[in-house]
Amino acid sequence: MKKTVRAHTNIALIKYWGKADAKLRLPLMSSLSMTLNAFYTDTSISKAIDKDIFYLNKKRQTAQQSRRVLNYLSLLKQKFDINDHLIVESINHVPTAAGLASSSSAFAALAAAFCKYYDINANPTELSRLARIGSGSASRSIFGGFAIWQKGNSDESSYAYPLDEHPQMDLRLLAIELNTQQKKISSTRGMQDAQSSPFFKPWLKRNEFELNQMINAIKNNDFTTLGELAELNANEMHAINLTAQPEFTYFEPETIRAIKLVEQLRQEGIECYYTIDAGPNLKVLSQLRNVKDIIQRFSSEFNNVKIVNASFGPGITYLD
Amino acid sequence: MKKTVRAHTNIALIKYWGKADAKLRLPLMSSLSMTLNAFYTDTSISKAIDKDIFYLNKKRQTAQQSRRVLNYLSLLKQKFDINDHLIVESINHVPTAAGLASSSSAFAALAAAFCKYYDINANPTELSRLARIGSGSASRSIFGGFAIWQKGNSDESSYAYPLDEHPQMDLRLLAIELNTQQKKISSTRGMQDAQSSPFFKPWLKRNEFELNQMINAIKNNDFTTLGELAELNANEMHAINLTAQPEFTYFEPETIRAIKLVEQLRQEGIECYYTIDAGPNLKVLSQLRNVKDIIQRFSSEFNNVKIVNASFGPGITYLD
Repeated sequence: MKKTVRAHTNIALIKYWGKADAKLRLPLMSSLSMTLNAFYTDTSISKAIDKDIFYLNKKRQTAQQSRRVLNYLSLLKQKFDINDHLIVESINHVPTAAGLASSSSAFAALAAAFCKYYDINANPTELSRLARIGSGSASRSIFGGFAIWQKGNSDESSYAYPLDEHPQMDLRLLAIELNTQQKKISSTRGMQDAQSSPFFKPWLKRNEFELNQMINAIKNNDFTTLGELAELNANEMHAINLTAQPEFTYFEPETIRAIKLVEQLRQEGIECYYTIDAGPNLKVLSQLRNVKDIIQRFSSEFNNVKIVNASFGPGITYLD
Repeated sequence: MKKTVRAHTNIALIKYWGKADAKLRLPLMSSLSMTLNAFYTDTSISKAIDKDIFYLNKKRQTAQQSRRVLNYLSLLKQKFDINDHLIVESINHVPTAAGLASSSSAFAALAAAFCKYYDINANPTELSRLARIGSGSASRSIFGGFAIWQKGNSDESSYAYPLDEHPQMDLRLLAIELNTQQKKISSTRGMQDAQSSPFFKPWLKRNEFELNQMINAIKNNDFTTLGELAELNANEMHAINLTAQPEFTYFEPETIRAIKLVEQLRQEGIECYYTIDAGPNLKVLSQLRNVKDIIQRFSSEFNNVKIVNASFGPGITYLD
């Protein structure tokens, strides 16, 4: 017997960038995301003989490589008084080209597959809370379309919920992988260090305001406001990093070039905005009519750039 | 009869980036600068026959090129009830290589030359106020060493004063001109747009705190704190720009590379910090023992980079 669940990755338009509780992964701010159709993880749970085992993309992972996943699995087993040994098999349908962190889909799929395997009757809110403990952003990947992770102040009150699972909005996300190979500061480290910025507290104070503005933009089908807000919120996150003590930045030279290309495209009347996560790559928000032009321009102005064209993805799906 | 005055440029370690009054050039924050020995402007005043004329580097300037200088000259004449026509001759000893704005030295020299020519008995405070109306940062170039421009709230109360005219501190400033050719957003435009950043007000609130910390660092001959604060303050200014609505940035791809080289040098134990003004170039703060290594590294890692090695310069000097 084996149970398989699919979860899609999501990209935050209002960012999660700071933990109130590292163990429970309670955030310092609420966040809002778009679940993507182009990237997902399929995870199966089945019985093992004498110890927990993790396969990723059909390859048995070493103890070191498995640690985060198997620690989380232990936590789930403990929570539900289960003593079995289990096999976790994950296939990441996240093109390595995309430069997208896959932990949101990975931990959402794992939490859901575990509950399915044991017939644990977890509603979406409970699933979101469980996924959150694996990876904060996974709380949002339980849902399709637009999801909001309300920060809450406890394990019980910190979970995501859908804002609109099947949006009619004309919104595309182009994941642009620039040709950079730089060592990365982990998100965990980055969001810890960011709190030394003098602008961190002022940013927290703005969170509710920006979140509400974003919710209104979505309700009003207002792409321009959504794009401007997403770009502002991402820039705020990177401004926080730049003013940490000492400063750090995920920007690479190519990031600046790509930002300037987005500015240039807007000046030419090709409406698009960017968001940037804990890495050098841009995700460009646009609408269907401009996708072709944007892809063409990025392709011609950057060497070896890889672009994935994404739109809204669904919430978790039970495959067998 | 001709009177000539020399004034040196200065670089702000605590930045001026916002006007409270555009006409009087009253700033929204106090600032602190280092006057540099390597860059200066010599300006002479003499009588003209029938109209004001401006020569820059021995070239007669067009009406358009002369506008800012001659408007300022008119203002000075008006202030002191003078009806003469004048010739302004300026020689900028600011290597175009340096990427340094020369308006601080230019307007300080012009204000002082004008007063000298007419035997106007202006004390340094009055000179600083006069220079300020030409260009905000010129208020600080009246003085050598470290100068503070207190923001004040009126024409009378907004002027610079020396913190230490002859510092004993081991402090070098390497002006690094990176090989970039991008259109520039003027300071006037930039500091206007910056005020739309949600972090602008929080930044203003920090000004007095950072200024006092910087004063203490100078008094304690504490290069590390001076460098860290200067870097933080510059990053704050650029974080403000990045979060303006809409965002803008003076950073170019090479700026990010240079920032990362400074980080790298520090990791190697070569202590240095950067400050960045309204352009893509870095000014690297360091101490004598590390200057050679830093120049060597920037020279080897950047094509066609131009580096000027500067230290403390004096206040205005009367040449004839």
